[in-house]
Amino acid sequence: MVPHLVTALTGPINELEQRILDSMPAIERWFRLEWMEHTPPFYTSVDVRNAGFKLAPVDTNLFPGGFNNLTEEMLPLAVQAAMAAIEKICPEAKNLLLIPEKHTRNTFYLTNVQRLMQIFTQAGLNVRLGTLDETIAAPTEIALPDGSSLKLEPLVRTRGRLGLKDFDPCTILLNNDLSAGIPKVLENLHEQYLLPPLHAGWAVRRKTNHFQAYEEVAKKFAKLLGMDPWLINPMFARCGEVNFSDGTGADCLMSNAEALLGKIRRKYKEYGINEKPFIIVKADAGTYGMGIMTVRDPKELAELSLAHTVGNAVENAYRRSDLFERRRALMQDWAAWCAVVQPDTEEASAVGDEPELEVADAGEHDGARSAP
Amino acid sequence: MVPHLVTALTGPINELEQRILDSMPAIERWFRLEWMEHTPPFYTSVDVRNAGFKLAPVDTNLFPGGFNNLTEEMLPLAVQAAMAAIEKICPEAKNLLLIPEKHTRNTFYLTNVQRLMQIFTQAGLNVRLGTLDETIAAPTEIALPDGSSLKLEPLVRTRGRLGLKDFDPCTILLNNDLSAGIPKVLENLHEQYLLPPLHAGWAVRRKTNHFQAYEEVAKKFAKLLGMDPWLINPMFARCGEVNFSDGTGADCLMSNAEALLGKIRRKYKEYGINEKPFIIVKADAGTYGMGIMTVRDPKELAELSLAHTVGNAVENAYRRSDLFERRRALMQDWAAWCAVVQPDTEEASAVGDEPELEVADAGEHDGARSAP
Repeated sequence: MVPHLVTALTGPINELEQRILDSMPAIERWFRLEWMEHTPPFYTSVDVRNAGFKLAPVDTNLFPGGFNNLTEEMLPLAVQAAMAAIEKICPEAKNLLLIPEKHTRNTFYLTNVQRLMQIFTQAGLNVRLGTLDETIAAPTEIALPDGSSLKLEPLVRTRGRLGLKDFDPCTILLNNDLSAGIPKVLENLHEQYLLPPLHAGWAVRRKTNHFQAYEEVAKKFAKLLGMDPWLINPMFARCGEVNFSDGTGADCLMSNAEALLGKIRRKYKEYGINEKPFIIVKADAGTYGMGIMTVRDPKELAELSLAHTVGNAVENAYRRSDLFERRRALMQDWAAWCAVVQPDTEEASAVGDEPELEVADAGEHDGARSAP
Repeated sequence: MVPHLVTALTGPINELEQRILDSMPAIERWFRLEWMEHTPPFYTSVDVRNAGFKLAPVDTNLFPGGFNNLTEEMLPLAVQAAMAAIEKICPEAKNLLLIPEKHTRNTFYLTNVQRLMQIFTQAGLNVRLGTLDETIAAPTEIALPDGSSLKLEPLVRTRGRLGLKDFDPCTILLNNDLSAGIPKVLENLHEQYLLPPLHAGWAVRRKTNHFQAYEEVAKKFAKLLGMDPWLINPMFARCGEVNFSDGTGADCLMSNAEALLGKIRRKYKEYGINEKPFIIVKADAGTYGMGIMTVRDPKELAELSLAHTVGNAVENAYRRSDLFERRRALMQDWAAWCAVVQPDTEEASAVGDEPELEVADAGEHDGARSAP
């Protein structure tokens, strides 16, 4: 039984919603059984996009920022979840060491850290902040907009353990996604719980692996509910290294884009959706929204590649700000589109069907992670 | 460090409150460790009274009604707690059999049952209702005020299991406090989880045992916080069988009342509390508020006993309604006093120091359990 869209865009999602509501006990039981077989992430945020005819995750952040976006009503739930997690991992724990990102001037991000500390304090832990910033050699107070402050302390590493001066934690919680690589100070901590594990960081993780795993999950879930997995699963394809300035991988991008757009067109036809299909091109690693492109016609990629090939440094810099503008426009589209709560607004990724075409561009990771 | 009350009644509770807030991580960790050593009740409601200078539980219901009193905001927390409990007890569970009280005409109670069903359905279980009422021989719909209905079904007992027709549950949840004794159909269910266990019901349980255990807990907790346990612990004393009509146990009641009132007076003096001490006399078993008496002077008990001894049936009936009036007045006092949420408003018990003097009066158990 596949929901069938004929004219209205609101019809099928309502049908899907009803199906999900009706199947709630079965769905919750399914989660319960899956969680017996797999270890769920310690914490995570999922960026869900609702196109009306389709509702799918387009990004999963294993080092979620944005806890400051939680409403007051959500706080007790977050505390209860933190308690349950701590009870499983380290029930006798007194101390939690939280390691945030290094950008200490982003107050939005710091407010997120403050909220995380509050949640784990209320869950029954002494929480202190250790920094990976080696220029911070003594405890340093960072002022927050509300007049309070956060204290960042230098990490103290012994042979098998990581802590702060006079602070030995049972669990170390990373809120740093390791985009810059795995710091030596975090390696070989066999006596303590390091969460999430190092291989969850962007130094190792790849979005395409994630979407491949998600595809399997979506298939199972869709089977449980008797629906088309496409309705909850973003199609994707992967290219290897892509470099716009010398044209490496450009062919792969174009052929993958063309193939995906074709698949989407067929799905749209099947469901009677009168929309122009589009795909999103983004890097296979990293949480930053920079360098994300919306593509409705593979020719756009050819032009882009060509321009980069012939362009000089100034033109490229200009083009880059142009891309940034396109990204802004995209986000504004989303502001009108989104019907679903986005706990993690950091990523400017997007929309309906979204392929993951690896775009190698390490330079895209400099922006502030928590920029709205 | 004991908080010291000199004049104002609001001072010390604020100090106590501040101490509790400051010690939150230690308190939550203490709970976590206690829950590793002891099995917490599957569900419970605690009737907490706040006298301004003292904040103490006066009743703990192991078969809580009143889930319909939960606010909408509390519902997700209740669902999350139910999920965590089910995950521990019976993670593969599909079905939950809920056995409510028999009084099927009390819509307040039935709305509580409806809410319980909603919570466990959202937690991922198929929930159905089995009744202990043997006059219900076929599935019976009971109308609710909101236009919906509940279906009560006759229990089906096999050798080792309890269920309904075509419904085999992993867990059986009792919302029936077994005041009327343990029904045979619930005995020897060794293949399923019966929650709470039979010995938690009023057929076995005694309030005095509970308060004795609570006294130990209060001492430990007070030590953790460096405070006087009296501030969170109701003093109590126990008499054996008491029968007002033939005077059995009346001496015990009076001497215990006198001793307790003396102890309370000394505590009031220590804290500079200018209140007239009082105690509450109630039965050692059962959840009904009937027969609860406030006593400020042990002579009241002597008069009561004397009156009963000489009274005839008509006088006794009159006196009983008089007691009921006193109980009503008591509840009204509380309406002005209580500053703390009372999730369980069923019990008209009360106040500051509250002894548990067993009053044997099986006839007091007929009232509707969930009367407001």
